[in-house]
Amino acid sequence: MARIALGVEYDGSRYHGWQTQQVGIRTVQTEVERALAKVANHPVSVSCAGRTDSGVHATGQVIHFDTDAERSERGWVYGANSALPADIAIRWAKPVSTEFHARFGAVARRYRYVIYNHRIRPALYNRQLTWNYRPLDIERMRQALPALRGTHDFTSYRGIHCQAKSPVKTLHHLELFQREQLIVLEAEANAFLMHMVRNIAGVLMAIGTGKAEPGWAGEVLAARDRRLGGVTAPPYGLYLVGVRYDPVFELPDEPLGPQWLPGELSAWR
Amino acid sequence: MARIALGVEYDGSRYHGWQTQQVGIRTVQTEVERALAKVANHPVSVSCAGRTDSGVHATGQVIHFDTDAERSERGWVYGANSALPADIAIRWAKPVSTEFHARFGAVARRYRYVIYNHRIRPALYNRQLTWNYRPLDIERMRQALPALRGTHDFTSYRGIHCQAKSPVKTLHHLELFQREQLIVLEAEANAFLMHMVRNIAGVLMAIGTGKAEPGWAGEVLAARDRRLGGVTAPPYGLYLVGVRYDPVFELPDEPLGPQWLPGELSAWR
Repeated sequence: MARIALGVEYDGSRYHGWQTQQVGIRTVQTEVERALAKVANHPVSVSCAGRTDSGVHATGQVIHFDTDAERSERGWVYGANSALPADIAIRWAKPVSTEFHARFGAVARRYRYVIYNHRIRPALYNRQLTWNYRPLDIERMRQALPALRGTHDFTSYRGIHCQAKSPVKTLHHLELFQREQLIVLEAEANAFLMHMVRNIAGVLMAIGTGKAEPGWAGEVLAARDRRLGGVTAPPYGLYLVGVRYDPVFELPDEPLGPQWLPGELSAWR
Repeated sequence: MARIALGVEYDGSRYHGWQTQQVGIRTVQTEVERALAKVANHPVSVSCAGRTDSGVHATGQVIHFDTDAERSERGWVYGANSALPADIAIRWAKPVSTEFHARFGAVARRYRYVIYNHRIRPALYNRQLTWNYRPLDIERMRQALPALRGTHDFTSYRGIHCQAKSPVKTLHHLELFQREQLIVLEAEANAFLMHMVRNIAGVLMAIGTGKAEPGWAGEVLAARDRRLGGVTAPPYGLYLVGVRYDPVFELPDEPLGPQWLPGELSAWR
């Protein structure tokens, strides 16, 4: 038996999230397992690093599955891609030892949240960006970041249906960058709670428009009460862009994405 | 009676091009006229600067229409946007003199053709980029550009159903730029023939992959025979990004788009 790790990119706008649900609900996992089963010629069950919500995208999702089928790396990638819909693609495949686990072995996940800040709504990429028509003051928003970095109880930023055992997570990295009318929040943590990035984005946008003071992000955190955390930002601007593992597994070092966000804006690995 | 000019952005992937056709065919023009009619409270007929093909996008389409309705600029923009589907948006509106004509007054049109050059197909933006899996040598492609710049008979780059009176057009500007895996062709001409940018992109990609020599672009041009011009590149990578008029009309100076292509890469106006 061999274990295969794969990198997956998808546009989540047509899917009810990553995870397979009841029959008839379209999810990314269902499509990926169906395509890999065709190539493997047996049923396939995959594990993933980040179970993204409905409408959320990924450029760097990492998954693994076990198989007795012998295929080349190209065979897995091209075979699965020819069986997948246009909005899901396998980017790479690599045989790994059975020590590797896409979910439990992930040391860190990195997300990007992309805001289009303009008074008029966009037509292009209307499900691949979050539109905010109020002018955002990025310097105000940056003042809120230090309070969130590090190890904290993120209960106030946790979706009510979250099933994580502990609300304590470590944000290794939390940065904002801007290019013209796009504002990008980049967050890396050992793991994220449900809606955590979208709830942080919601708080930061309230600070950026002047509705709240920069200190509010830390006050919300300290309160450990989701009801104080304001609105959950929409899913469309959110991308799972990378997952970090022990270097011993030698996974491919892919650019973070989306394709048009240049890699030099951010340090990675 | 007043004449109103408007800037329009749209994702063309769900539409059979700009121009209204028979009933039941979804086009951008039909949607825009329906939305403006709601705001004006009378039927509206618009003229546009560039009748984009099926699947082609615009960030800077310019149109005009005549009306007796008195609305503010905001009234036209916000009113129409609330009636338009998510993949079409009015970006600005401005009253102009009846000397203005979106089509006949356009001095130049500018298009961008965006190629994603990677061996694996993209999942995100799969209808907003043209994927080419063969490595493209941008320096080879650039060698082909001077032969195409200037005033020429572009019969060899003209779609067979083109209805333009003359195949002679002037390419004022033809440049290639690259950012990581994206290659962007930018072309400005007084006017374009049907499929002209896509046929130029097709020839340039053949040169970039090594299938043809850089001199081939000029040989095709000189032959004045569409059958020698190779394949028409797909519509998905093509964007109408701007239209130039006499400065006397003082139209808004909008960034070229797509949103994520920074303005500093290109001079405009």
